[in-house]
Amino acid sequence: MELISSQMNGYMDKASWIRKMFEEGIKLKKEFGEENVHDFSLGNPDLPPPATVKKALAELADQADQPFFLGYMPNFGYPAVRERLAEEVSKEQGVSIPADSLVITCGAAGALNSVFRAVLNPGDEVLTPAPFFVEYGFYAENHGATLKPVPSKPLTFELDLEGIDAAITDKTRVIIINSPNNPSGAIYSREELDGLAAILNKHNAKRERPIYILADEPYRFLAFDGAEVPSLLDVYTYSIVCSSFSKNLSLAGERVGYACVNPAIEGKEKLMGAIIMANRILGFVNAPALAQKLLGKALGSSVDVSIYDRRRKAMAEVLDNAGYKYTMPKGAFYFFPEAPGGDDIKFCATLQEEKILAVPGTGFGSPGYFRLAFCVGEDVILRAKDAFKRAMDKA
Amino acid sequence: MELISSQMNGYMDKASWIRKMFEEGIKLKKEFGEENVHDFSLGNPDLPPPATVKKALAELADQADQPFFLGYMPNFGYPAVRERLAEEVSKEQGVSIPADSLVITCGAAGALNSVFRAVLNPGDEVLTPAPFFVEYGFYAENHGATLKPVPSKPLTFELDLEGIDAAITDKTRVIIINSPNNPSGAIYSREELDGLAAILNKHNAKRERPIYILADEPYRFLAFDGAEVPSLLDVYTYSIVCSSFSKNLSLAGERVGYACVNPAIEGKEKLMGAIIMANRILGFVNAPALAQKLLGKALGSSVDVSIYDRRRKAMAEVLDNAGYKYTMPKGAFYFFPEAPGGDDIKFCATLQEEKILAVPGTGFGSPGYFRLAFCVGEDVILRAKDAFKRAMDKA
Repeated sequence: MELISSQMNGYMDKASWIRKMFEEGIKLKKEFGEENVHDFSLGNPDLPPPATVKKALAELADQADQPFFLGYMPNFGYPAVRERLAEEVSKEQGVSIPADSLVITCGAAGALNSVFRAVLNPGDEVLTPAPFFVEYGFYAENHGATLKPVPSKPLTFELDLEGIDAAITDKTRVIIINSPNNPSGAIYSREELDGLAAILNKHNAKRERPIYILADEPYRFLAFDGAEVPSLLDVYTYSIVCSSFSKNLSLAGERVGYACVNPAIEGKEKLMGAIIMANRILGFVNAPALAQKLLGKALGSSVDVSIYDRRRKAMAEVLDNAGYKYTMPKGAFYFFPEAPGGDDIKFCATLQEEKILAVPGTGFGSPGYFRLAFCVGEDVILRAKDAFKRAMDKA
Repeated sequence: MELISSQMNGYMDKASWIRKMFEEGIKLKKEFGEENVHDFSLGNPDLPPPATVKKALAELADQADQPFFLGYMPNFGYPAVRERLAEEVSKEQGVSIPADSLVITCGAAGALNSVFRAVLNPGDEVLTPAPFFVEYGFYAENHGATLKPVPSKPLTFELDLEGIDAAITDKTRVIIINSPNNPSGAIYSREELDGLAAILNKHNAKRERPIYILADEPYRFLAFDGAEVPSLLDVYTYSIVCSSFSKNLSLAGERVGYACVNPAIEGKEKLMGAIIMANRILGFVNAPALAQKLLGKALGSSVDVSIYDRRRKAMAEVLDNAGYKYTMPKGAFYFFPEAPGGDDIKFCATLQEEKILAVPGTGFGSPGYFRLAFCVGEDVILRAKDAFKRAMDKA
């Protein structure tokens, strides 16, 4: 009997080689011991949540015998937390954001899906610069749309504005960008974003349905050497920012984030209403009550970013020592070097022989590269030094 | 400019009269004081979470400075919590459920959407007996399917098996049932479920794609007078149970529940894999970490069900006194009486003149009735006595 949908059947066939890799990793760790495997495959932050989270949780425990303590609330979240969030987001974006431009969501993934549900018609197209987070494709297809990746410039991963312009059709509804970028570590400059906005404004002038820029920004807090992460909100009117607290508060499994609609959009109440409704009908209903209450107390705090910067420098030394070619990441916690020999899947297998776990660039729509996550202890990075060298020598 | 999708445009127009009613309620409370308005419109449990929740939260606070404490986990949830959940669900269902038949979800709404995403093709049909929870329609349409309600028997709200049989087409993929039922308080008997299973088995014999029964069971714990809530799992092979802890642990805003696939389904691993993947790609990723950790410690406890039973009896007296016609609810915390005069929208307006807030049956696909939620203090029920009488006299 046909137990699952046709589309899901296709997904599960496609996904199986990534799963196989993951399972190989588990096997390696079992065989050689966790401490002898160099695992750079996962973007799961290893820093503990900041002290504010522990303190907030203890305070919340005291109130947990009150009626409605964890009951339903407005679908957009607790009004007081939303007000507090509006202050923080205003600071981060350098643009004044009123609370009613925000909906608190189940992580950035929940925010992206709610926005897609609110604005996409079946048949619409979503553009994204490659490399990109592979789940974007599923998110678009959840709502009957398709993802069209546009390759970025080789090695620097700057936006290819001409390529984006050429890829836009009447069906283009959203361009999703992720800066600082997973997996490349690139940060799009103000010039690149201005250029992108000019292209979209040109297209919008001929359309009834504007093209949105959806900015997925969970790594905004993680920009190195004082790099600027420009806000889309004062660059382009039809912009929506999504983010989460997975990285800056190490709350990835707790599922809390937000969508922020540009207050400059004329008639934005309708768009907000649709996103809030989408958040409800997709089954999120509202972001988790405890996570929101935590935010109310812990917003503004963060894990220690300098730790990530030290690791970045350590990883750069390890890669330099072995002769890898890469662009130094400006933000986020990933390196995206060229795969020696050109075949990323083959090279990741070579790395695996040296007990290094990495993800092929093919998994991000950019074959020829591979991703290393440095949200792991500095010791893990340092002790992988010789293994990286050996893998390079084999390639 | 067209800011939102065509479908969402339609939803927001349709939804506006319910919102209007809700806003009227807020206005009433402002004008006459909260204590002078009798609000039976919301299914938001007013009982505080059981003491186990407070204790568990205090214990969790102690661990919140550990790395990965709230980090990513397998998409199906924490393995240890899933094991613990399997024990509880086995007890509740009277069927032995292995842990790998379960995925922990963001509430029942998250479970229903993940199952729909996993099994529905665009164009499929989902049947449900009316009255039904209005969100089911949105959930089906999220995945390109449509909801076809089949009226239940008048006033008793037993399943109309002939009606269901007649409504089945080649496109029928799921029948979603909710027992104990919101809004009718009906519990489907073993005979009704056996009859339903026989009909579906007859249809399945001629199909490659089985028809699933999706049992939405957040009120299973709330059956009065020792009423049996039969398990679908030993009645029908292609059954999936979804539930949440919104009601029994008063955690509605915290968003935690599960989907349980019948272990008797041949090849169920594929179905489970698809539901787990759907849970991930819809953007839930996993159920909230804190909620899962709470469950690990609080599973098996419950709010005091006898309080709901006392309220049920108090509400029955109030309705009897005024002469309303209804079937005594066997479970859940709702009455669904006939609307005197037959027009439920008009009668709810009459109730509102008496400062009683209720929801018209039209909102549940059953015009001619109205819903009263009794998850409110007994005092609220008792002091509405004269107002219910006056409304009846006016009708």
